[in-house]
Amino acid sequence: MGEGTDEGGARPGEERVALPERFDAGLYFIGRIRTPWTRREDCPKNAGASDALVTIELDPRWQAGLAELETCSHVIVLYWMDRAPRDLVVQKPAHYAHGRGTFALRSPARPNPIALSVAELIGIEGARLTLRGLDCLDGTPLLDLKPYFASVDAKPEAHVGWRESERGGAARN
Amino acid sequence: MGEGTDEGGARPGEERVALPERFDAGLYFIGRIRTPWTRREDCPKNAGASDALVTIELDPRWQAGLAELETCSHVIVLYWMDRAPRDLVVQKPAHYAHGRGTFALRSPARPNPIALSVAELIGIEGARLTLRGLDCLDGTPLLDLKPYFASVDAKPEAHVGWRESERGGAARN
Repeated sequence: MGEGTDEGGARPGEERVALPERFDAGLYFIGRIRTPWTRREDCPKNAGASDALVTIELDPRWQAGLAELETCSHVIVLYWMDRAPRDLVVQKPAHYAHGRGTFALRSPARPNPIALSVAELIGIEGARLTLRGLDCLDGTPLLDLKPYFASVDAKPEAHVGWRESERGGAARN
Repeated sequence: MGEGTDEGGARPGEERVALPERFDAGLYFIGRIRTPWTRREDCPKNAGASDALVTIELDPRWQAGLAELETCSHVIVLYWMDRAPRDLVVQKPAHYAHGRGTFALRSPARPNPIALSVAELIGIEGARLTLRGLDCLDGTPLLDLKPYFASVDAKPEAHVGWRESERGGAARN
């Protein structure tokens, strides 16, 4: 399996590390996410910014696993950012003033490029799900679906200090 | 790599499928979660039920990735449930009336046994993090850390219909 790196040396504000020699576990792609966006620059800046409906095509092998998911209003979607480099530990998105640690960012570039979105579940037909609130590229591999439990997953009081300083104390988004 | 299955045939209320012949991508274990619980039956029933402090020991290779994570009040922790079977699509936890689809449950048993917890970040020293709100076994492999963004991750209005019927319409937790 390739290392998923799509870039060469580090740019200013970035830091790379040598990757481990081997993987420790394996993933199955269990479906694909179908979105209107085929180029990275077309994707919404964040999932909350788009009302677009997207479709998840689950591999029929796993279809029985959807039973009663239709009773859930929101779903946690885990997916695989297969184009992201995995060796970046400090990175500087273009609109940020300086580099920050990968684990302080939601960038797709991370040792295990697993992305997470909380999406509104609109409906399920067979092995096809319709959702709102995903912003990934068309064809993105799906890893998992989980019910969103407000009692443990919703922390409306949470804050991200660096975002507030980046924006001069403006709204958190 | 093994398939992570730790059980034989399906029990009443359960359904298993044949797993794909090969993996599609590979994961690195980037650290270990240190908790007071060494047996599954000792783990808290859910993360919200324990005030215990737990420690994450990040592999020093990735330590630079923590920069500015200390400004975050809450962290999304992704970890690998390496003892869970991966072929269960319908399962019936002992305290439930009937089987439900894997994707409607937060059970560790799923095609890709990636678990997710939202934990309160207490502090970071070097490559060691102290957190509250994790309920996994001691030694559990770490996959990722992400900042929790209330603006997109907190959905306090979310509901899980089957939980309400399971409890006769009682509190959601």
